[in-house]
Amino acid sequence: MAQQQAQVKFTAVKPQLMVKTPKAVDAVNFYKSAFGAAEAGRSACCPPPTAEQNLPNILCAQLELAGCSFVVYNDDSAPYDLHLFLSLLSIFIEEEKIEGIGNQLCLETDDVEAAISKAVSAGAVVEGEVTEGGGACCGGRVGKVKDPYGYVWLICSPSNKCGPVEA
Amino acid sequence: MAQQQAQVKFTAVKPQLMVKTPKAVDAVNFYKSAFGAAEAGRSACCPPPTAEQNLPNILCAQLELAGCSFVVYNDDSAPYDLHLFLSLLSIFIEEEKIEGIGNQLCLETDDVEAAISKAVSAGAVVEGEVTEGGGACCGGRVGKVKDPYGYVWLICSPSNKCGPVEA
Repeated sequence: MAQQQAQVKFTAVKPQLMVKTPKAVDAVNFYKSAFGAAEAGRSACCPPPTAEQNLPNILCAQLELAGCSFVVYNDDSAPYDLHLFLSLLSIFIEEEKIEGIGNQLCLETDDVEAAISKAVSAGAVVEGEVTEGGGACCGGRVGKVKDPYGYVWLICSPSNKCGPVEA
Repeated sequence: MAQQQAQVKFTAVKPQLMVKTPKAVDAVNFYKSAFGAAEAGRSACCPPPTAEQNLPNILCAQLELAGCSFVVYNDDSAPYDLHLFLSLLSIFIEEEKIEGIGNQLCLETDDVEAAISKAVSAGAVVEGEVTEGGGACCGGRVGKVKDPYGYVWLICSPSNKCGPVEA
């Protein structure tokens, strides 16, 4: 058993971003123009709807960026508007805490300001100032943009300040 | 300007997982044993607290898996328990919809069952059955585990069913 488990190999780590139907195609185009992501493939038929499901517009697209992949998908089974839902949440918890739910995506680049500018040109909104050593990226300059689909992206300079691994 | 923007290059895409203090070290150890992630570095001092902040226990650790990196960080500025908070949310929306907020992480592997078994041995909990062609991974076998820190991971066979990119 232990021997079998030791053989488990993962070939990819892919963040998956759910986007409200029918905005998935827009989102794919946004991530291309804002971040320079390349589309590796898309499907309009996964998963095949089962008898108890009614999912006519499922689309998932795989995007590649900086040697990693992420997936954009929409899901008619999600009945709510993410922005409206987050607004409702803010009744119960301050807005800035909401980002801690789930995970954020950090993009590393040598030119944080140019990257933010390009993302804003594509439709993202800047969140706060670019700070030095802030965020959870282990150092460097860190800015934030929120994309039109509700996701916050950290734009960071490379994390070369991480300390050595402790024993 | 357009020329400058075209030069923006990203060197990494790093999902960032917030873990409630003081569980970040446990989480790092979990991701090593459950998924075979390798620790590339950690820091106990980022960001330096500002005058208006009181962040004594910030820790972020960078983990590497399948050629990609992700970051685990804790944050004393997050006052809530994630599980409690999600329980409260479930008053307003069915539990299974909560996963659509933020993003999920998909791990690709040729042996979904062995990967799930290894994760469970490390402390993860299986969510539902392994399905064929389900999830947002564009095909293959898909299972789900929830880790002890509240994050759901899709464990999928490689997504070789993605269709060609549409024009």
